[in-house]
Amino acid sequence: MLFRADADYARELDASDELAHVRNEFVIADPDQIYLDGNSLGRLPKATAALTADIVNQQWGERLIRGWNEGWFTAPERIGAKIAQLIGADPDEVIVADSTSINLFKLVVAVLRAFPQRSRILTDDLNFPSDLYILQGIIDLLGAQHQVHVARSPDSVHGPVVELRERLDADAALLTLSHTVFKSGYVYDMAELTAAAHAHGALTLWDLSHSVGAVPLDLHAAGADMAIGCTYKYLNGGPGSPAFLFIRRDLQERLHNPITGWMGQQNPFDFDLRYRATPGMRHFLTGTPQVVSLALIEPGLDVLLAAGMDRVRAKSVRQSEYLIQLWEALLAPLGFSLNSPRDPRQRGSHVSLGHPQGLYIDLALINDMNVLPDFRMPDNIRLGIAPLYTSFSDIHTAVTRMRQIVVEGLFEKYVDQAPVVT
Amino acid sequence: MLFRADADYARELDASDELAHVRNEFVIADPDQIYLDGNSLGRLPKATAALTADIVNQQWGERLIRGWNEGWFTAPERIGAKIAQLIGADPDEVIVADSTSINLFKLVVAVLRAFPQRSRILTDDLNFPSDLYILQGIIDLLGAQHQVHVARSPDSVHGPVVELRERLDADAALLTLSHTVFKSGYVYDMAELTAAAHAHGALTLWDLSHSVGAVPLDLHAAGADMAIGCTYKYLNGGPGSPAFLFIRRDLQERLHNPITGWMGQQNPFDFDLRYRATPGMRHFLTGTPQVVSLALIEPGLDVLLAAGMDRVRAKSVRQSEYLIQLWEALLAPLGFSLNSPRDPRQRGSHVSLGHPQGLYIDLALINDMNVLPDFRMPDNIRLGIAPLYTSFSDIHTAVTRMRQIVVEGLFEKYVDQAPVVT
Repeated sequence: MLFRADADYARELDASDELAHVRNEFVIADPDQIYLDGNSLGRLPKATAALTADIVNQQWGERLIRGWNEGWFTAPERIGAKIAQLIGADPDEVIVADSTSINLFKLVVAVLRAFPQRSRILTDDLNFPSDLYILQGIIDLLGAQHQVHVARSPDSVHGPVVELRERLDADAALLTLSHTVFKSGYVYDMAELTAAAHAHGALTLWDLSHSVGAVPLDLHAAGADMAIGCTYKYLNGGPGSPAFLFIRRDLQERLHNPITGWMGQQNPFDFDLRYRATPGMRHFLTGTPQVVSLALIEPGLDVLLAAGMDRVRAKSVRQSEYLIQLWEALLAPLGFSLNSPRDPRQRGSHVSLGHPQGLYIDLALINDMNVLPDFRMPDNIRLGIAPLYTSFSDIHTAVTRMRQIVVEGLFEKYVDQAPVVT
Repeated sequence: MLFRADADYARELDASDELAHVRNEFVIADPDQIYLDGNSLGRLPKATAALTADIVNQQWGERLIRGWNEGWFTAPERIGAKIAQLIGADPDEVIVADSTSINLFKLVVAVLRAFPQRSRILTDDLNFPSDLYILQGIIDLLGAQHQVHVARSPDSVHGPVVELRERLDADAALLTLSHTVFKSGYVYDMAELTAAAHAHGALTLWDLSHSVGAVPLDLHAAGADMAIGCTYKYLNGGPGSPAFLFIRRDLQERLHNPITGWMGQQNPFDFDLRYRATPGMRHFLTGTPQVVSLALIEPGLDVLLAAGMDRVRAKSVRQSEYLIQLWEALLAPLGFSLNSPRDPRQRGSHVSLGHPQGLYIDLALINDMNVLPDFRMPDNIRLGIAPLYTSFSDIHTAVTRMRQIVVEGLFEKYVDQAPVVT
């Protein structure tokens, strides 16, 4: 089918979309609203809305403390095992706990202590800033014998692969990167960089926050050592839902969680006074899990597993290619730039479009056009494609409305307004 | 009124209880069930059940990403300010974040780094084990120049006040204790021990998990430096709901959170690559808060604040005294011991009763008698009094059923069964 820029063509694409029915699994409160921020906060699955009442009214309200024996205590590994299916890991290599940032802290401290003869952590300036902050905090804490090297991206879109490779040497302890970077959506070749790190005896730790549920992952095939990631984006786990961490099995007993709390203790209900780590991933738990936010992750995972990651990825590529073709035809002539990789093999499931008036266009989209993208400084309008519920018509409508904002100058009233948090 | 051990007397006490109506604010699914584990997991407030649907269906399902600007982002300090009212702190001295264990880690690491000339942490063997595990992990991490001294309780019920005082010297960095200890319910004199610590230049950090919502607290009057605590016990925040931390204002800028994530960053949505801590308590945040579990804390706080902490404490003392009188009359003759302080000024809101067959009596209570206490090794049946919803009749019925279990030997079938997690 040849590309066309009209709305009928979007409807034709929707009609032939084998995943179109999955949209019905989600709450769509306002059908006119175009939601392109599933890369920040995924939509509410209908099954989650139902489960919420069960967790709060029955499990908490009626079962009370017995809930701990009836599913809460084991939820971190039960839900972790489902995430494992999405990332090419074994069920007992993934656990859900805390936030992505705290999990990164635990793992990086553990690595530096397990490999004291190596001093350097490698990362890049495309990594999510919280990851960089955590690394800075660790260096501050553990002292000057450790350093972080932040490789500089060549063009703010693509990863600095050459520089990272050059900096891998016998002093490198760890290479840690966002697998899909948050601004441009650039995706690293995990297998290639992991092999390069391993050739120098360094480990790899991948932040999968913008990858999991968006691009197929096979941590085993890539040889990855560790991973972290969040569950509230493409996994649709709910606002701030807890994060996960992965450690390949043969590394699990070499790494020690520095934040040693009772949920990582052998037989925590014996209340021994001395900490003894429980074997396996569970010792990377610390405190009592936030059960409601934790349990609400599960229905979204089931929807994604039923849809199938390969089909989700195929649709994501079709949709992002379609969006980029619309950009070329309708938006590039108005000054929009493509701030994401053009090659779909290097691109996750969101597309960033730049514009000198990007922030004001974003505000007009949200406030006047019923389109919800998000915005990342300095000028990126981030359009997140969540194939489980994003339609081709959504994409067409969003582009049409963006075009209208610029053609009719609808963004001008927002110039000099303070930026909002998005 | 003279004490009587009959059920009519319990009903008379309920009839004259000025807080009796507050029980109607909670979901009571099974009126025959006696729930005495509010010190482990508080009941579900009816307002929380209503708020749950709003948070999930409207705030997440309809408002989507905009929820962050409509209350989620500020929830840690908004809810912290309500907790501040319960603990004698200013609104901007308390924030809600992560788990009690993780907050302890952050604060203790911060203290040891701020006061490097002092090496010793003082605590006791009545502290909640997770707190001890966290301290052990920190010593492991920061090296042998630091030590933890664990003072030994004289009788497993009362705190080792004498030993703690003896160990306070110019080398003591921090005194950290559970204000109300989890097994016996012993309550430390916070003002007295804080003054003793300050006399030697040491700081104090109080774990308020079993105190907040159970006993009146005035951190300012006591001169306390730091505190942590959980929200799922007497605050009725829901299973695993996030914890809080307090730092007195003039110490806030001297202590630095070692787990430096984006929620503690100045202007996190600028996505600067370098961490700059935001002033005040917010810099003790790390990752994205688990919004659903966080937001569900608020209705329970409102119920407690409306009831008034002084009235709650007065009822708690009446109820625990009543329980102890019933123990003396009905249970002591059957071999039950009082494993809590006899003096109500030294006792929180739970009472531990020991018995050589304690574990099996506990199992019979749960499985055959529709009473839910909890059990703490080696022999403690912990009876939690939550004055917001515990009635005098609940207490009377529980004691009657415990007596029946022993008199009729109903516990015997559980002997040699494996212990359950409670």
